[in-house]
Amino acid sequence: MTVYNFSAGPAVLPKKVLEQAQSSLVDYQGSGMSILELSHRSSLFLAVIEECEQLLRELMKIPENYRVLFMQGGASLQFSMLPLNVAQGKKALYVNTGSWAKKAIAAAKKVPNVEVEVVASSEDTQYTTVPTIDVAQLDAVAAYLHITTNETIGGVTYHQIPQTGSLPLVADMSSNFLSNDYRVEDFAMIYAGAQKNLGPSGLTVVIIRDDFLNKEDVFSAMLDYRVQAENQSMYNTPPTFAIYVAKLVLEWVKELGGVPEIVKRNQQKAALLYEAIEQSSLFSSPVAKENRSLTNIPFVTGNAELDKAFIKQATAAGFENIKGHRSVGGMRASIYNAFPLEGVQALVAFMEAFEKEQGEN
Amino acid sequence: MTVYNFSAGPAVLPKKVLEQAQSSLVDYQGSGMSILELSHRSSLFLAVIEECEQLLRELMKIPENYRVLFMQGGASLQFSMLPLNVAQGKKALYVNTGSWAKKAIAAAKKVPNVEVEVVASSEDTQYTTVPTIDVAQLDAVAAYLHITTNETIGGVTYHQIPQTGSLPLVADMSSNFLSNDYRVEDFAMIYAGAQKNLGPSGLTVVIIRDDFLNKEDVFSAMLDYRVQAENQSMYNTPPTFAIYVAKLVLEWVKELGGVPEIVKRNQQKAALLYEAIEQSSLFSSPVAKENRSLTNIPFVTGNAELDKAFIKQATAAGFENIKGHRSVGGMRASIYNAFPLEGVQALVAFMEAFEKEQGEN
Repeated sequence: MTVYNFSAGPAVLPKKVLEQAQSSLVDYQGSGMSILELSHRSSLFLAVIEECEQLLRELMKIPENYRVLFMQGGASLQFSMLPLNVAQGKKALYVNTGSWAKKAIAAAKKVPNVEVEVVASSEDTQYTTVPTIDVAQLDAVAAYLHITTNETIGGVTYHQIPQTGSLPLVADMSSNFLSNDYRVEDFAMIYAGAQKNLGPSGLTVVIIRDDFLNKEDVFSAMLDYRVQAENQSMYNTPPTFAIYVAKLVLEWVKELGGVPEIVKRNQQKAALLYEAIEQSSLFSSPVAKENRSLTNIPFVTGNAELDKAFIKQATAAGFENIKGHRSVGGMRASIYNAFPLEGVQALVAFMEAFEKEQGEN
Repeated sequence: MTVYNFSAGPAVLPKKVLEQAQSSLVDYQGSGMSILELSHRSSLFLAVIEECEQLLRELMKIPENYRVLFMQGGASLQFSMLPLNVAQGKKALYVNTGSWAKKAIAAAKKVPNVEVEVVASSEDTQYTTVPTIDVAQLDAVAAYLHITTNETIGGVTYHQIPQTGSLPLVADMSSNFLSNDYRVEDFAMIYAGAQKNLGPSGLTVVIIRDDFLNKEDVFSAMLDYRVQAENQSMYNTPPTFAIYVAKLVLEWVKELGGVPEIVKRNQQKAALLYEAIEQSSLFSSPVAKENRSLTNIPFVTGNAELDKAFIKQATAAGFENIKGHRSVGGMRASIYNAFPLEGVQALVAFMEAFEKEQGEN
């Protein structure tokens, strides 16, 4: 049975990457050592981390005045680190688009010496839209405006990035990293947990503009963007294997044709599933058309029992992790960069068969 | 050429563990998914993390009233988290035994609302000893006394753990975790980066007594021991692959005969190398006999040029990462739990041949 893994993260990785990683597990490049055993200060590993950064710079067209940091702790630690580093004694602005935005906001509110203001929210649409931001109305001297470019749970996304001018824009891009045609120049900082689009869990990528680095020390070197930047992400031992796998994923993206090709494929995969949902009289999408995510696609029957039956049968047929998040219910197909088109085709066929069967009952 | 990897971390792992990890990289237990692709909420991964904790509890004889946390950020993040969680408005006591103790002390001093006191230091012996602690003289209402059970760089270790009674004892055990016959009951908290004795980098294990958990919230959930404990290390996505490899290492330790067998082997390996150093008229150990580490063994010729020649020839002969840390100079053999006896035998033979050759010049 072919298994298609719709997990929201850790998520599917390219088969080729898995095979390459596998071949490095006992003897990395004839060194007699596993990739897991390499000292982070060794020339072999330094080549890995440098190549990883270089590839990311190339693929995302990251300008020279941005630093790339490889960190730990996931997006959740960034939620605290961001205001701790750059909003001390200042106001920090947030857009509330759902579950992950709310977590970022709640975390920022717990950081001392920061005034958090939610400047826009899609709560009134039950987080099925992305709110319009009136940039002219924003506090121009705020530390930053924070957005969540894609809501992993709600399945809403920004297809247009707000143009905030001199107000620094910061994005949690965990669930659509490398999955879109955003321009790095539009952001002062981007961060993303790796386990959705870039590699295994345990690695967080931060892309930060030089002039946005904290001016003052943070109480912990490990939580200090400037310290991490000055030490090229090697203030202490980085998660070496996760960085290695990320490098392999970036090589795979490049070979495929880069981010434009990924975006094209993601659009194709998502369109296939959204069209099937639109044409169905059983399944529907809770998300407003203009804000539908390319990477996380929730859908429901409107009947909890039927959702349950679908999930059970789908799982038995090899569609893993298709159950929706408990806060939304129904189903969710997380179809990140590495998710194959065939998996979406198979799901669509399965949905059609399920619907037909229901009609016959 | 057989390669022996003396890296101080990330370090050598058991061959069997590497082969098992390798076999899980493309298809984990016939699931059709890689171990890297498993959702951290899946039953397959939950079995991994539960078994990992269970094995650690069994091997270290961890009492019921201690929690085991799987975290990120290395010992360096613990340096800040510890005083942030449990020493707010209190005094925190430290023993200075060298490089890593100094880092822990410096980090604690940067945490607000903590009074740091260094109660003992081996600075006067250039960190070649472990100082005696007069427990009766310590501030009994301090938050804790912190020790570094093994100095990775200096190569000094505690063969006896100070008995601090009601004063909580906290240990950075990164470089001799599972390598000794310490009793968990002697500590209120133990922490260790995994990349020396337990697995790949990117995982930190914290063993903390229930009554030592922070009573007050910390400003960041990710940095809060109680939150992490209440969420069974799953407040956010944990480093799943590193936890899986740690589980394999613990299975390997158990099969070998548990911690007593590891200790016996470590004593045998270390004795072999120390005896060779003692019998040599070329090499010497800078460390006082009674405090010599079983896991990190620095040695020098006393001649920087000769050290350099030794390192060059040794590296060419397959002894990787034998160069000492720049702060100590000379050579260092990190021979952690997974380092094979044959590697020490080979190094000793190489040292003897080098010495003989020098005598002939």
